[in-house]
Amino acid sequence: MSDILDPVLARIDADLPAALDRLMELLRIPSISTDPEYGAECARAADWLVADLQSLGFDAASRPTPGHPMVVGHGGTGGRHLLFYGHYDVQPVDPLSLWGRDPFDPVVEDTPRGRVIRARGSSDDKGQLMTFIEACRAWKAVHGTLPGKLTVFLEGEEESSSPSLIPFMKDNAAELSADLALICDTGLYGDDTPAISTQLRGLAKAEFTLHAATRDLHSGAYGGLARNPIHVLTRILSGLHDDTGRVMVPGFYDDVAELPDTLRQQWQGLAFDHAKYLGDVGLSVPAGEQDRTPLEMLWSRPTAEVNGVWGGYNGAGFKTVLPAEAHAKVSFRLVSQQDPDKIVAAFQAWAEAQLPADCRIEWHDVGGSPASVMSVADPAFEAARQALTDEWGRPAAFVGVGGSIPIAGYFKTYLGMDAMLIGFARDDDQIHSPNEKYDLTSFHKGIRSWARILARIAGDRG
Amino acid sequence: MSDILDPVLARIDADLPAALDRLMELLRIPSISTDPEYGAECARAADWLVADLQSLGFDAASRPTPGHPMVVGHGGTGGRHLLFYGHYDVQPVDPLSLWGRDPFDPVVEDTPRGRVIRARGSSDDKGQLMTFIEACRAWKAVHGTLPGKLTVFLEGEEESSSPSLIPFMKDNAAELSADLALICDTGLYGDDTPAISTQLRGLAKAEFTLHAATRDLHSGAYGGLARNPIHVLTRILSGLHDDTGRVMVPGFYDDVAELPDTLRQQWQGLAFDHAKYLGDVGLSVPAGEQDRTPLEMLWSRPTAEVNGVWGGYNGAGFKTVLPAEAHAKVSFRLVSQQDPDKIVAAFQAWAEAQLPADCRIEWHDVGGSPASVMSVADPAFEAARQALTDEWGRPAAFVGVGGSIPIAGYFKTYLGMDAMLIGFARDDDQIHSPNEKYDLTSFHKGIRSWARILARIAGDRG
Repeated sequence: MSDILDPVLARIDADLPAALDRLMELLRIPSISTDPEYGAECARAADWLVADLQSLGFDAASRPTPGHPMVVGHGGTGGRHLLFYGHYDVQPVDPLSLWGRDPFDPVVEDTPRGRVIRARGSSDDKGQLMTFIEACRAWKAVHGTLPGKLTVFLEGEEESSSPSLIPFMKDNAAELSADLALICDTGLYGDDTPAISTQLRGLAKAEFTLHAATRDLHSGAYGGLARNPIHVLTRILSGLHDDTGRVMVPGFYDDVAELPDTLRQQWQGLAFDHAKYLGDVGLSVPAGEQDRTPLEMLWSRPTAEVNGVWGGYNGAGFKTVLPAEAHAKVSFRLVSQQDPDKIVAAFQAWAEAQLPADCRIEWHDVGGSPASVMSVADPAFEAARQALTDEWGRPAAFVGVGGSIPIAGYFKTYLGMDAMLIGFARDDDQIHSPNEKYDLTSFHKGIRSWARILARIAGDRG
Repeated sequence: MSDILDPVLARIDADLPAALDRLMELLRIPSISTDPEYGAECARAADWLVADLQSLGFDAASRPTPGHPMVVGHGGTGGRHLLFYGHYDVQPVDPLSLWGRDPFDPVVEDTPRGRVIRARGSSDDKGQLMTFIEACRAWKAVHGTLPGKLTVFLEGEEESSSPSLIPFMKDNAAELSADLALICDTGLYGDDTPAISTQLRGLAKAEFTLHAATRDLHSGAYGGLARNPIHVLTRILSGLHDDTGRVMVPGFYDDVAELPDTLRQQWQGLAFDHAKYLGDVGLSVPAGEQDRTPLEMLWSRPTAEVNGVWGGYNGAGFKTVLPAEAHAKVSFRLVSQQDPDKIVAAFQAWAEAQLPADCRIEWHDVGGSPASVMSVADPAFEAARQALTDEWGRPAAFVGVGGSIPIAGYFKTYLGMDAMLIGFARDDDQIHSPNEKYDLTSFHKGIRSWARILARIAGDRG
């Protein structure tokens, strides 16, 4: 029993319906950052968060950038300064036809696996960031103060490559530098094992247009004689992997380290059930590098993926066109010391070397961020692990993350602080997909988890 | 000098501005047959043509079908019955952004290569079909009667695979059977050589969806482990041709005949300038079967072309998605005795044999029509060749057509009549592409050409 923590947990339980109402309000704002049409909605989400932070006593403001605003709030006192990061922007919702309801009309649904909050952004990342804010709110309500010296830093461009993030961090380095960053944008391990993510894959990406003729051609008048850029594109993309799943871009694996034996053993202990993981989405066979374990494929091996391809006619009916151009969006998940710029340059050179006469490639939107590996020497990691174990009733794990959360690396590079990644999403949350959801349990126990963690590491208690 | 023909030609010259106004009216109707949204516009174009034919004394009507209506008109007298075919529907206009103006706001433009009528459908096929109707109009104005026993048969589904055509022809076989069909949906050879098309490629097509996971996946959470259907699709499509341009579907060439020596020699005499033909659209190298001449690639060899491909995210910015499905539209130009059903079945079997675990293909919109080769024994062919030679001042040619005009084969199969394909489109008309045009010269001399042809073969003059 703890006089400090227990009343906060009780308050969280009692306030859950109101916390849910607040999250619903935020979810109703369609803050899609990739689409310029939703710029005003992103600003509205930022303003909503500023007002909410101010109501908790934070000195908060929406800070302009060339893109969407940053939300920054400072509050509380104590020796140890913690910075919390989340993002209020969400992924696009297409294909809208696959949603069961309006993605921005959130609802709590009963499902066979429990109650869920259904809406775009419910899991990634509005529901998650609100777990931290609600923990602060309960603490303030019980103790009259925030749990320690806190900075809340919420971004609005995470789903659109964070173009303003590094400049903003550089311009405000003194203000944003804390002793440790907390990031809530990851998940549980499996359905119920709390996890602290200690290594994350990086991401490199390149979008391109492959040009052939100066205009679309009729396949009756030109077919058999004229170059079809879709054919050239499919030849290049089909060569990204060999038959064993190995990426064929020269030098791709140069800076990839093998998994340390200690980590390999720890991961084996996690008993990852890939049959269930794939089975949940209608698949059965691991499709990556055939000489690697499924967890390696996801956490410690780099990938090449075509995320989008289009060219020619895709409307109703048939149009026997030889298009003037074809397009692709390709991304690479990076590990170890792989350099995003070097990987993209190698891909570009490899693709261009395959171009036949009369074709050229125009590159757009190339770039990336490296992988991150956290140091777990900071005792806050063990303290947080204990707090999570207390809340969830099973030992918390140090895990890898297949996705890319570049912010963790940026905090290290630009602000000199380590980051602790703790989140409560589940594998079936369908983030970036139609019908995204966040379990009510994730939300509720997530708030309680942060209260427990803050009780151990915030203020002067760390 | 001809008392019968000369006043008709003079009338055509004098009436050209009014003929152009009439064509403009028809071009303003956006009769896009592939898109259900434009159904009413297709009906409006049919009604416009019925009214115009009635004004010339045709007993004309818009005849309902399960799709867009057929226009059928009968008129004139004489021993030899000619049926004229054209189509009033047009191709979709996307990408609209590449048009210099509204595709359905026609205009006459001065260009460095002469005056052109700029609009969707100007060349394919409204401008062409109106050349025949205007020739009839001038004849009627001068002689008080149509030039012979004529049936005009105008379709509204040519650009969307003619689903209603065969049933309509079967249901109305007695009414539509004539002694010879005239089809105006082809082009000049080169810029100024009139041509009668005597062989046309057929078309087979197949659209399909390749399914993998049951939903879109996040490449961070699944990338490296889950099957990406875009990768599978690009592997299949990239294998359609070998490095020499040969189509790799098993059995594809089984029913392809070699070009007869006589035709090979005649085609050599046409001195096809492939460098210019490709150069006009920004290309330089013939991209088809490397052991064939450019004219063979276009007229007498079969092809496989991907006309559309799409999958994953193609909006602004990046979305690191592994999509649940990917799509393609593939078509084959057919020659000789190739059977469309057999070719599609071979393609389907070949594609499905390449599917890895967890993937399946769903087929849509498969079908096709065989190639046609006309018999030129009917003296009307030589008479028409003379008429065209008289109008254009250079010998008319018997040529091949790379495109597919299935109607020619259907007339033979279902109505037992041969077809003579004569048209006045130019290679740079950009049919099926943005900024379609029809040369004013094609329109004017096209009308005069039909008057000359009808003077030789219609009524009892044939």
